[in-house]
Amino acid sequence: MEEKESKKKNRAGSIPGPTNPMVTPLLTDLYQFTMAYAYWKAGKHQERAVFDLYFRKNPFGGEYTVFAGLEECVRFVANYKLSNQEVDFIKKNLSVSCEDAFLDYLRGIDCSDVEVYAIPEGSVVFPKVPLLRVEGPVAVVQLLETPFVNLINFASLVSTNAARHRFVAGKSKTLLEFGLRRAQGPDGAVGASKYSYIGGFDATSNVAAGMLFGIPLRGTHSHAFVSSYMNVDEIKDKSLRRKDGSSTCKDFVSLVQSWLKKIEKSNSLRGNFAETNKSELAALISYALAFPDNFLALVDTYDLWFSLAIFTHICMLESMFIIINLFFLKESYNCYYSLLSLDDVLSRYKAIGIRLDSGDLAYLSCEVRKLFCSIEKEFELPGFGKMIITASNDLNEETLDALNKQGHEIDAYGIGTYLVTCYAQAALGVVFKLVEINNKPRIKLSESFSKVTIPCKKRIYRLYGKEGYALVDIMTGENEPPPKEGERILCRHPFQESKRAYVVPQKVEELLRCYCAGNSDKKEGTLPPLKDIRERCIKQLEQMRSDHMRRLNPTPYKVSVSGKLYEFIHFLWLNEAPVGELR
Amino acid sequence: MEEKESKKKNRAGSIPGPTNPMVTPLLTDLYQFTMAYAYWKAGKHQERAVFDLYFRKNPFGGEYTVFAGLEECVRFVANYKLSNQEVDFIKKNLSVSCEDAFLDYLRGIDCSDVEVYAIPEGSVVFPKVPLLRVEGPVAVVQLLETPFVNLINFASLVSTNAARHRFVAGKSKTLLEFGLRRAQGPDGAVGASKYSYIGGFDATSNVAAGMLFGIPLRGTHSHAFVSSYMNVDEIKDKSLRRKDGSSTCKDFVSLVQSWLKKIEKSNSLRGNFAETNKSELAALISYALAFPDNFLALVDTYDLWFSLAIFTHICMLESMFIIINLFFLKESYNCYYSLLSLDDVLSRYKAIGIRLDSGDLAYLSCEVRKLFCSIEKEFELPGFGKMIITASNDLNEETLDALNKQGHEIDAYGIGTYLVTCYAQAALGVVFKLVEINNKPRIKLSESFSKVTIPCKKRIYRLYGKEGYALVDIMTGENEPPPKEGERILCRHPFQESKRAYVVPQKVEELLRCYCAGNSDKKEGTLPPLKDIRERCIKQLEQMRSDHMRRLNPTPYKVSVSGKLYEFIHFLWLNEAPVGELR
Repeated sequence: MEEKESKKKNRAGSIPGPTNPMVTPLLTDLYQFTMAYAYWKAGKHQERAVFDLYFRKNPFGGEYTVFAGLEECVRFVANYKLSNQEVDFIKKNLSVSCEDAFLDYLRGIDCSDVEVYAIPEGSVVFPKVPLLRVEGPVAVVQLLETPFVNLINFASLVSTNAARHRFVAGKSKTLLEFGLRRAQGPDGAVGASKYSYIGGFDATSNVAAGMLFGIPLRGTHSHAFVSSYMNVDEIKDKSLRRKDGSSTCKDFVSLVQSWLKKIEKSNSLRGNFAETNKSELAALISYALAFPDNFLALVDTYDLWFSLAIFTHICMLESMFIIINLFFLKESYNCYYSLLSLDDVLSRYKAIGIRLDSGDLAYLSCEVRKLFCSIEKEFELPGFGKMIITASNDLNEETLDALNKQGHEIDAYGIGTYLVTCYAQAALGVVFKLVEINNKPRIKLSESFSKVTIPCKKRIYRLYGKEGYALVDIMTGENEPPPKEGERILCRHPFQESKRAYVVPQKVEELLRCYCAGNSDKKEGTLPPLKDIRERCIKQLEQMRSDHMRRLNPTPYKVSVSGKLYEFIHFLWLNEAPVGELR
Repeated sequence: MEEKESKKKNRAGSIPGPTNPMVTPLLTDLYQFTMAYAYWKAGKHQERAVFDLYFRKNPFGGEYTVFAGLEECVRFVANYKLSNQEVDFIKKNLSVSCEDAFLDYLRGIDCSDVEVYAIPEGSVVFPKVPLLRVEGPVAVVQLLETPFVNLINFASLVSTNAARHRFVAGKSKTLLEFGLRRAQGPDGAVGASKYSYIGGFDATSNVAAGMLFGIPLRGTHSHAFVSSYMNVDEIKDKSLRRKDGSSTCKDFVSLVQSWLKKIEKSNSLRGNFAETNKSELAALISYALAFPDNFLALVDTYDLWFSLAIFTHICMLESMFIIINLFFLKESYNCYYSLLSLDDVLSRYKAIGIRLDSGDLAYLSCEVRKLFCSIEKEFELPGFGKMIITASNDLNEETLDALNKQGHEIDAYGIGTYLVTCYAQAALGVVFKLVEINNKPRIKLSESFSKVTIPCKKRIYRLYGKEGYALVDIMTGENEPPPKEGERILCRHPFQESKRAYVVPQKVEELLRCYCAGNSDKKEGTLPPLKDIRERCIKQLEQMRSDHMRRLNPTPYKVSVSGKLYEFIHFLWLNEAPVGELR
């Protein structure tokens, strides 16, 4: 007993609570507490139960899912404790005849006797395979069902969505998660930032997520910033300053204006610079003064009377942007840094690129690239042509795919609504099913095969082929001998008799690891840092055969059971199913 | 200065922080901080700006939206304060040349100079009409943009979704929110519970939401509970107890079994009772022992070989349920409460009903109702036929509509995934736009009319017609005289010249109220309790003409501007739009 106490203390001490303090034992369905009471009344609450957490169908019409949300579940279990206030609240909401001894029982629950086995977070996973196997007293494990499903459902859905966006965008592009404002609530947003990062995004706009998880942050400015300026007279401090505070240019505004005139005479720039919008000129200069080493401007576009007019306008805006850049790259080089190399200058005052947030992004990005390249040539500015072009505006998998087909010059995508709300499919059907109680396997039958549970406490292995790709996942009973490398094994479809195949694995990977050891002597796995989870995800996706990954008509990855487990499932099935009666 | 301090203290003291502690000033886009820095650098940060928060299109193909999320915004503003740790984090993520004085400025921001005007939470609202008007120093109000949009977007979306479900279900049905496990993260769930309640739901399964907001809780048991039992021998304490702990029946299990035999002989019950599934019998008896005053059983169904077999099975399960109920209603009446009226007995030991979670819900509910009614008749049990039939299983607006068309006997719906994730449309496009700065109106132009902003600080009125229905919303400039009851006023479409109408309102309601007075002398409205918000919503929905509310081809509700505001919009528009040039 003492040993147990100290073990518990260590666990709770070393593992922090869930990211969101709202994740408490009350974040569960009322029926988990009513069932707990009924179990307790029947004297069954301590019976040892095994539950599997899994999903039935890959989301987004695809054939793979990225598993995420595990760390939050482990944190939840390691810190499980009902406060007196919470117990009082439960008392009020159960039966009026609810006995006080049950409330004492609730107060004592700390999950120290719960074992959690899971596939590592960031793994690629498939339907029917348990992502988590949770063992413990039946009443306690039931209480964990709802929070576990909640914490894993959305996490895995967003990670998968992010991975799918990455797949379409390609490895070389920068992917930015911009969904905070459109997410489903505050931690819908924070969760989306975290799990998009796991799925392969590079950065987020969400400052809170940056602070909580160390995810890189990105941001430019909005249109409101542009329209808050009337003209350049509003800029009170016109001097460009170095980091040490000393001024390198007393009147940057006038300098930009003089450059504006010079550029007007250029043949390669087709804009109507005399009519530059004063409000936009002022805003961009002001923004450049604030971010001399990190200047990324929003270029807004709108079409007016004729399609040509859009282009003129774009060029106008572009030109202003370029003017400011030219100053940093050229003027400052000439005037103040003549002793430094151009590279040094570039590293001190640096324009990064532009963001396009409207219009025909494929077309505009190509025009902008042409402009940048002609500037690079005419003004001898190496690297100017490679300036980053970021695009945003209701992007999703389909639009990325369409952009690729049209051809474009976009380097980075800012993706919001469709990513973070998983607009194409807003929920993953994660379930939590009893597979064993008191060492007796249980099966749940259903009218459809997909809803029949796979009974027993199981082990799961991923079998890899010669080329390093994953071939098949196989589930076996807990005590069956594991598949061996180089040895032939029969993999059977869990329900369809005729579907079976022999596999000779080149590599065998056991998928479930222990994360909470409970009272067992198993060794607990550690929770890896977020970056490692992200790397695991990227690596695992690379180990998948491309036909499983493609967007159109992907091939299903095979999930199988051992011959022995197959026989057992069907024995149990026949045993449980009532025989129909025709009358 | 002193007065201001004390005012601030009162506000923060009386208004608690946001429900989710993760809602901090960092829960915003990075670009809000980069802009704040650029404003500060330009010396513009204190300029007084007015922003409107609104949406452009009603969700779910409908013509109305329920506004929600206001209270959380007010709580956020009233407690706004950046910690030193947060400021340090921002410093690291802005320009390397970011000046320390700016960080001091950030530390001092407390939003005491921000004014928030809003339409009361729970109101029915329409596109283009500002739900919030936020006034304050431009840099500060920009920082509020992202959290405000986040807090209102999902809240309004779910409330609207709930209202739409209520509209289809009808007033007499009980609507239960069962979405915790499928929601987008922990407070996606808690938010969904709260805002579904506002939109007209009656209860939730989410215990945390029950505790936080006082929403009624509901829950039965899951299938896992049923399959955790093997047979009745597992029930250790077989006695049925009264509240005071005294036993009213020592062996309830045997009693049920004896009733089982009696009922088998009944002609009106068509089930095959001899083959009753032992595990289900045990589970239901056990559950009834725990909830003698509140017994609601899950009746699971699955189809096997023939459609008739389903029905046989259903009857089997039903029968067990009925047996237990019969005991409570009849047996206990006869044996123990002969001095009490039947009503008294009903209030002590009471079965509530059943939950159907699979199969053809319309058909099954009708069959179950028939069975209940024949039991009522045969066993002389008044009220038994009116037992509650709850249905769940992937319900949404469309399935409720289909059930109505088929005819059914369902009293209560448990709705999860489709409600809480707003599956049909997972985000509302709430935006936050600058409409005035330094007393100068601003307009944002766009290629599409729907994206052009309506400039100026505005007032909004809802005009009601003779029959009490809302006719039109009208926006006017801040200082225009308000519309008067009984006086004709011209209402113009904001952008289309030809669309205009005279209206003689029977009632005029000004929509925007002050919730944060800032440094003004306006009187702050109080935050009403959740029940009042819910009632407001239900009442407001009743004040809408039915053609706006119907699911198929609803008529758009009209949103207009005054003649004066119309003229001004178009003057500004022409002024700002660049003249295109054909070359």
